[in-house]
Amino acid sequence: MSGSTELERPAGFLAAAVKAGIKPSGGLDLAVLVSDRECSAAGTFTTNRVAAAPVHWDRSILPSGSIRGIIINAGNANAATGQLGLDNARATASAAAAVLGCRTDQILVASTGVIGHQLPMPRVEAGLRAALDAATEDVSQFHEASRAIMTTDTRPKVVSLRREINGRAVTLLGLAKGAAMIGPNMATMLGFLLTDARVDPERLRGMLKAAVEDSFNCISVEGHMSTNDTVLALANGAGGVEDDTLLAGMIREACITLAKMIPDDGEGATHLITIDVEGASTSEDARAIARAVADSPLVKTAIHGADPNWGRIVSAAGYAGVPFEEADLSLWLNEVPLYRDGAPLPFDDATVSANLRANRETHIRLVLNHGPAAVRFWTCDLTAEYVRLNADYTT
Amino acid sequence: MSGSTELERPAGFLAAAVKAGIKPSGGLDLAVLVSDRECSAAGTFTTNRVAAAPVHWDRSILPSGSIRGIIINAGNANAATGQLGLDNARATASAAAAVLGCRTDQILVASTGVIGHQLPMPRVEAGLRAALDAATEDVSQFHEASRAIMTTDTRPKVVSLRREINGRAVTLLGLAKGAAMIGPNMATMLGFLLTDARVDPERLRGMLKAAVEDSFNCISVEGHMSTNDTVLALANGAGGVEDDTLLAGMIREACITLAKMIPDDGEGATHLITIDVEGASTSEDARAIARAVADSPLVKTAIHGADPNWGRIVSAAGYAGVPFEEADLSLWLNEVPLYRDGAPLPFDDATVSANLRANRETHIRLVLNHGPAAVRFWTCDLTAEYVRLNADYTT
Repeated sequence: MSGSTELERPAGFLAAAVKAGIKPSGGLDLAVLVSDRECSAAGTFTTNRVAAAPVHWDRSILPSGSIRGIIINAGNANAATGQLGLDNARATASAAAAVLGCRTDQILVASTGVIGHQLPMPRVEAGLRAALDAATEDVSQFHEASRAIMTTDTRPKVVSLRREINGRAVTLLGLAKGAAMIGPNMATMLGFLLTDARVDPERLRGMLKAAVEDSFNCISVEGHMSTNDTVLALANGAGGVEDDTLLAGMIREACITLAKMIPDDGEGATHLITIDVEGASTSEDARAIARAVADSPLVKTAIHGADPNWGRIVSAAGYAGVPFEEADLSLWLNEVPLYRDGAPLPFDDATVSANLRANRETHIRLVLNHGPAAVRFWTCDLTAEYVRLNADYTT
Repeated sequence: MSGSTELERPAGFLAAAVKAGIKPSGGLDLAVLVSDRECSAAGTFTTNRVAAAPVHWDRSILPSGSIRGIIINAGNANAATGQLGLDNARATASAAAAVLGCRTDQILVASTGVIGHQLPMPRVEAGLRAALDAATEDVSQFHEASRAIMTTDTRPKVVSLRREINGRAVTLLGLAKGAAMIGPNMATMLGFLLTDARVDPERLRGMLKAAVEDSFNCISVEGHMSTNDTVLALANGAGGVEDDTLLAGMIREACITLAKMIPDDGEGATHLITIDVEGASTSEDARAIARAVADSPLVKTAIHGADPNWGRIVSAAGYAGVPFEEADLSLWLNEVPLYRDGAPLPFDDATVSANLRANRETHIRLVLNHGPAAVRFWTCDLTAEYVRLNADYTT
């Protein structure tokens, strides 16, 4: 499904990545994703009140409809940068539009990196011109793009899906970055989905919203919401297939696959934790409980320490703001029942601890008896390495 | 104000602490605080849906009015323990009432420690009988009590206040514990206020509620709400003074003094962080912003690393759920202006970093231009030592 040898490329899309000199490391830091024709486009964004300039820009142009490409930089978030930041986001789009011969409002932008610093515009503009000149359909450039958007990620995050229907193919390629809003001055999750399916913007928006709800909105590393979170989908119709059921399923699968990669690559993480909350009255209730458990440093450190300290899990569920009685709640940890209907069950500490220690994947299952709603949420553990990366290796 | 040499004792109260054998360490783990006459009493408690058995017990008896004493154990939270836990909380009160010759519903109980284990009742009952037999007015026993209620606290937390009015004195003694819901299997903040002032329960409840709102409800260590949080106030009238304005001020001062001691003693903490949020429309808005900043692991690690990474602070404010525009927000860090009306200000990184490093106390000031509401909140930084204490030193 993913991996450098197998990556499938949707028809009509080009990519490139360059070293524009934005990251102090001097690595790849600017990527372009371009379609050879106009695309239906949809986006979902951070709900942070301190939203980055590129988020404001993308929100303003998405209703206009026909998108030609996305310019992404890492190393600078262009967030908390005031009017100059907004001007720079627009100037980025404008410079790309001039090269592509399209309107400025047909270019989306995305940024990730340090907050509160202005973009080095001469480098950004020179970089995006070089990248647009070099953009190619070659799969290797999509791989390069997935590396260019990394900040503290330890590995690129890509997925591709190909489905055939009546002898014609739909291909979807997804790229994401994120290891938390994390690292010395680093930030954000970004996701990009490119497909050659045909779909109108309104329906694409619905598909993306539903998929993000169950994927990128169900992950956390440390619970700090970024200023820059952005997921963009482009559909250029170059493959000629129009099948909403098929495409919605592919978007959902790609989003979940990419989303899980983020906490799995969370800074310092030694465990990927899957949290299932079932039997809630509403999915909002289920999500609130899952998020409280996922964001508790005490739950995260207990998993890190392979400590079957389940009181931390049920007590986090208890402060999620969802009304319930203790007798409504049961808990399983890696399939071992620890707490049923509000009372503790006997279990062997050493066995559960050994099981936690032996498996990178941890499964927390909380069941209420309130209703039919369920949610699946992913997070990672909290380690001393996370603290070191965010405190000790600093300016 | 506090400290072993200066502690003042309110008239008519007795205390003792014993080693009941509840803590595996074998240390002091059971304290009694008793009045020689009936007291007006008030309490505030965790809002966690998984509330500990002693919280249920205390809530049920407080309306009855006349309290004689409090039995406190550390080493076991009696939380998530089902019906047997509730029975054990009542049995604890019943055993104390039998010794004191009062009704069971005149005895409050409080517990802190491991969640999900049943209290060792023979030890609890033997311990409380020994403590009640030994209880004395001697100040040293109040000090011992403040040690007995500690879990992962590194130091006891006590305060006493004495005010004279018309030649007569009001004395208030406060004890607290808490270093987070924290440590291998440990939990909770507890606070106890004893005064010889005269006040009816209804007015005492109002004073305590107001004081807790601005003190114990304005602190966090890692943001994990305990199942056992409890603050109890007893007023026995033995000093004869009835002056609500005086007493309300003393209760407020004692609560704030004790509350600040908790994040200052937060596990692994190297900084006490004071967060002022000003200019909000409502105090709920101000508190929501302060709490989001206080609970962000990225803010906490930045302070730990003396990193003036202010983007983490304003972005945490941005996801607090309070609507505002970026241009509404300004930020000072240790009195240095970093962000004004939504735009970054130039500042010298090295100077601000050196200042953060040199001072244990850190001051974050966020100002909106929405209204008159303000809140002061206290937290601590997040260190690798916190992670080690909660993960690596485990079962």
